[in-house]
Amino acid sequence: MPKGKVDPANIPNDGLTTRQRRMLPVTAVNTGDGKGKSTAAFGMALRAWNQGMSIGVFQFVKSAKWRVGEEAVFRKLGELHDETGVGGPVEWHKMGEGWSWSRTKGTEDDHARNALDGWHEVARRLHEETHDFYVLDEFTYPMSWGWVPVEKVAETLRNRPGTQHVVITGRRAPQEIIDVADLVTKMEKIKHPMDQGRKGQKGIEW
Amino acid sequence: MPKGKVDPANIPNDGLTTRQRRMLPVTAVNTGDGKGKSTAAFGMALRAWNQGMSIGVFQFVKSAKWRVGEEAVFRKLGELHDETGVGGPVEWHKMGEGWSWSRTKGTEDDHARNALDGWHEVARRLHEETHDFYVLDEFTYPMSWGWVPVEKVAETLRNRPGTQHVVITGRRAPQEIIDVADLVTKMEKIKHPMDQGRKGQKGIEW
Repeated sequence: MPKGKVDPANIPNDGLTTRQRRMLPVTAVNTGDGKGKSTAAFGMALRAWNQGMSIGVFQFVKSAKWRVGEEAVFRKLGELHDETGVGGPVEWHKMGEGWSWSRTKGTEDDHARNALDGWHEVARRLHEETHDFYVLDEFTYPMSWGWVPVEKVAETLRNRPGTQHVVITGRRAPQEIIDVADLVTKMEKIKHPMDQGRKGQKGIEW
Repeated sequence: MPKGKVDPANIPNDGLTTRQRRMLPVTAVNTGDGKGKSTAAFGMALRAWNQGMSIGVFQFVKSAKWRVGEEAVFRKLGELHDETGVGGPVEWHKMGEGWSWSRTKGTEDDHARNALDGWHEVARRLHEETHDFYVLDEFTYPMSWGWVPVEKVAETLRNRPGTQHVVITGRRAPQEIIDVADLVTKMEKIKHPMDQGRKGQKGIEW
């Protein structure tokens, strides 16, 4: 994609300079039934880390075993930052049974409650501008299932202070979230090894 | 996606055990007009690195400035491997004006020749099983432009020895490559900040 090429006809009448517009927070959504939604989100986080941004990952899934590779690497990158100052700090939180910051561990059956707790924590951090770059992994599901109020999420994202970037992944992104997003990409499956009866593979799937 | 759930009706009659099938090399293609094609490929490479795989990245673009973030992080990960043994080794090659391994630097106008040289090197490495995981970034373009013979690429990919995974990115993936691939994902643009006259942003686009 050519960098810096903007059709003048498309420049918005928002009173902002290009520089100001460049510093706007980005809300990105990776949705669709194909692969690469989370993977691309973590790839974006990699770039943000390299720019020295503070990364906050929140995995809204019961089991996070599919992302152990990314988690391991980002934890190493976080340590690298803490030890040498390169890149940015990294926090990686997963829902599992409750969240790491929560004193009261939820139970396996508390998914709805856990998801809502997770969102409240994210909202708190957005309010306090804790991170520069948030990955809300698989966050579309608790919204679709009614566990987390979509309108509230859209409102919080719309009104968040500063330049905090947020990437949301998962199938069936609610329309309210699409509306508030700047960058929405649909990953569509054209062909998948499992169609040929193949299982997940080390280094590819996890 | 549920792990390890394979519809028995879909198990191929190829005489392989699940374990053998799991060790098959994967050919993945990220195509389409949307974002996230390369980003997801580098995310996959991250997982592969974490499994100790040897990573070879080949960028088939004239200017690689859009991937400086990924390159910086992967170079750090490569150093981390060399110093401490965690993860796998990393080689990152970009076309630019000729390739880093090439003694005779090409000129700006030698794109077709440079691209073909790059492919020959990749083919050589596939033959020698140099890496475990290859990212051929933006490789669809030299193929569509006729600079690199698609049939030859498909044949080389189909007959490569061992368990070498290959991920190819770029718009308009040729049908011959789709045919040889196991995993094909199309990234489709639903909404993009540039539609609203916004430029690329630090930590997001580079």
